[in-house]
Amino acid sequence: SEEQSKLTVGVGIAIVSSFVNGSTFVLQKKGILRARGSGRTYLADCVWWCGTLAMIVGQIGNFLAYNAAPAVLVTPLGALGVLFGAVLASWLLQEHLNILGKLGCVLCCCGSVVLIIHSPKSESVASRVELEERLLDPVFLSYITLVVLLLVALIGWLSPAYGKSNIMVYVGICSLLGSFTVPSCKGLGLAAKDAFSGDFTTDNRAMYLFLCLLAVLIVCILIQFTFINKALENFSSNMFEAVYYVVFTSSVILASAILFKEWETLGLLDCLGILCGFTTVSVGVTLLRISQEAVITWTPAKTKEE
Amino acid sequence: SEEQSKLTVGVGIAIVSSFVNGSTFVLQKKGILRARGSGRTYLADCVWWCGTLAMIVGQIGNFLAYNAAPAVLVTPLGALGVLFGAVLASWLLQEHLNILGKLGCVLCCCGSVVLIIHSPKSESVASRVELEERLLDPVFLSYITLVVLLLVALIGWLSPAYGKSNIMVYVGICSLLGSFTVPSCKGLGLAAKDAFSGDFTTDNRAMYLFLCLLAVLIVCILIQFTFINKALENFSSNMFEAVYYVVFTSSVILASAILFKEWETLGLLDCLGILCGFTTVSVGVTLLRISQEAVITWTPAKTKEE
Repeated sequence: SEEQSKLTVGVGIAIVSSFVNGSTFVLQKKGILRARGSGRTYLADCVWWCGTLAMIVGQIGNFLAYNAAPAVLVTPLGALGVLFGAVLASWLLQEHLNILGKLGCVLCCCGSVVLIIHSPKSESVASRVELEERLLDPVFLSYITLVVLLLVALIGWLSPAYGKSNIMVYVGICSLLGSFTVPSCKGLGLAAKDAFSGDFTTDNRAMYLFLCLLAVLIVCILIQFTFINKALENFSSNMFEAVYYVVFTSSVILASAILFKEWETLGLLDCLGILCGFTTVSVGVTLLRISQEAVITWTPAKTKEE
Repeated sequence: SEEQSKLTVGVGIAIVSSFVNGSTFVLQKKGILRARGSGRTYLADCVWWCGTLAMIVGQIGNFLAYNAAPAVLVTPLGALGVLFGAVLASWLLQEHLNILGKLGCVLCCCGSVVLIIHSPKSESVASRVELEERLLDPVFLSYITLVVLLLVALIGWLSPAYGKSNIMVYVGICSLLGSFTVPSCKGLGLAAKDAFSGDFTTDNRAMYLFLCLLAVLIVCILIQFTFINKALENFSSNMFEAVYYVVFTSSVILASAILFKEWETLGLLDCLGILCGFTTVSVGVTLLRISQEAVITWTPAKTKEE
């Protein structure tokens, strides 16, 4: 069916853009390290700009994927990027991939397959009018208000004081902004269809929604972009990405669940499958990161006489 | 339906007997250590006998589970025993459960849920006559011949020479014996129904099959029992259990697949789901074991300036 092939295309785009996104952090980090080594700013480094380009391409890919497949499926698939990022980092940054890293890669793949098997097979919001209704839903409005208050507190007060010592501040900011970017991506596709297909003068409502969502998306991406780079300057890319992945994905799934009600069409077993798949992927991402932060020493004495 | 409730009971028994089986290794190990400390044989230690009793109860539970649910589901659920064993070991043997051990526990649970979701929902072999046909299937006979030859080579030749230095020898013996014990358990249930319900004098065939399977089961369990204790005397229980779990489960799934053709009733997605679930559980078991063999040292220098 058409719905089915749209989903397949969405999953395909999501996987490819995950790989592109996976290279982003590594290339930017490589650029920052190279620039630091030669005493220049990273804005003059071409590898850093490749990373930034990859980020833009990856974001466009994400945008397309979010419009073709459910958010609960596209977001966790980002783990495949972490996998690719780890492989690329072991090559470009000479970050060693040990047994834990390899197990983490296996888990990212297994968890992603389970997620794909159990994800919702069709969209719950299919038109702009439906989207407008959902955006004005009191539960969603309360959630958004809470997120905005949290963001103001984090950016205005906690970030200057604790940003450089506590990784959760930057992770929190970037993840909460995901509550806006992902629904904006999905909404933009729906609004664009109506805004550009109908009569411009009479269909003002669709155009306003389109411009409003576009503005939200641009502002959010710029803030995210700023804080990701601040985080990368202060923390290890491994540490940041692991925590970021889990918190960001949870935050996006929560926002999508409230806005698009993707869970309503799912049975109990599928919900359970998604939960297990997401947990497996999260453990995989964590392992990949632990493997790059920790040194494992075997205790050979214990294997004979414990 | 009746089929559904039988499956639920089977899964329930499988989970409980996994927990009982999980305590086996820990209790026997504790007994061996206590006996070694006081200079006695472990045959005089009551904790060792508790472990042996738990093994018998666990085996009976397994027998019942194999008769109520597919082997492809019951065998991997044994991972829950590894989880319980790890928790018990951290309490009785003071084996510390670190972050990797905890992640391993989470993976065992997630993988088990995925396995339960995707496992076959009904039995493919439902009568003794069908079982006899399957047992005489040329593919199964060839597989059994191969396993017997391997076992003769392992027990007669490799075990005296390499048993104490290479963990795979004992693991191989115990796992290959699983190819006999698990189908015997399932077959015994089917054969018992016919052997004890019909007329004794005319239904000799069922009685012969029953006695034959019972003999195979007893001989296999005794050999397994001997080599598990040999392995525990020479290797760490963690190391042994991790490798044993993966090899044993794969061997049982292979034998069941050939004998009961449980896979034929499954769709592609369910096969994929089982594969992912089993891989997740295997990684979980491996992590639990790595966590008890390895010391993790964090590299705090890298978290600030990498």
